[in-house]
Amino acid sequence: MKAIVHVMLKDGVLDPQGDAVRHALGTLGFAGVQAVRQGKVIELDLAATDRAEAEAEVRAMCDKLLANTVIEKYTVAIA
Amino acid sequence: MKAIVHVMLKDGVLDPQGDAVRHALGTLGFAGVQAVRQGKVIELDLAATDRAEAEAEVRAMCDKLLANTVIEKYTVAIA
Repeated sequence: MKAIVHVMLKDGVLDPQGDAVRHALGTLGFAGVQAVRQGKVIELDLAATDRAEAEAEVRAMCDKLLANTVIEKYTVAIA
Repeated sequence: MKAIVHVMLKDGVLDPQGDAVRHALGTLGFAGVQAVRQGKVIELDLAATDRAEAEAEVRAMCDKLLANTVIEKYTVAIA
């Protein structure tokens, strides 16, 4: 079973990496970019076969390791 | 208009970051994780209002800056 986790900075948390990308795109001539936020995507191959169980396990992984929940939010999709 | 870009290492390209995450999850007791791949997700707010035009512009951004197409693949979703 495959899980896809998105980890993004929470709204309101400054994202200097995203700002750097926006600035770089501007210097390359892409003028229509108003804002950029950059995050992580993590694809996990899991041995679990139960969907609900897999999602609960992945959420535990996010809370313990994959995301810093003080400043980051995450979403879990089970495929 | 909002665009979401996923940038992942191509299949076959070693992903030491993903392997490190898998190992760390193992040491935390998550034994059922068979493989991990880590990539980037980039959210762009665009001034463009035409969907096809926006997608073409974002693909150009990926080719020029956001992805290293020698070792990385990307997907673009317009929301």
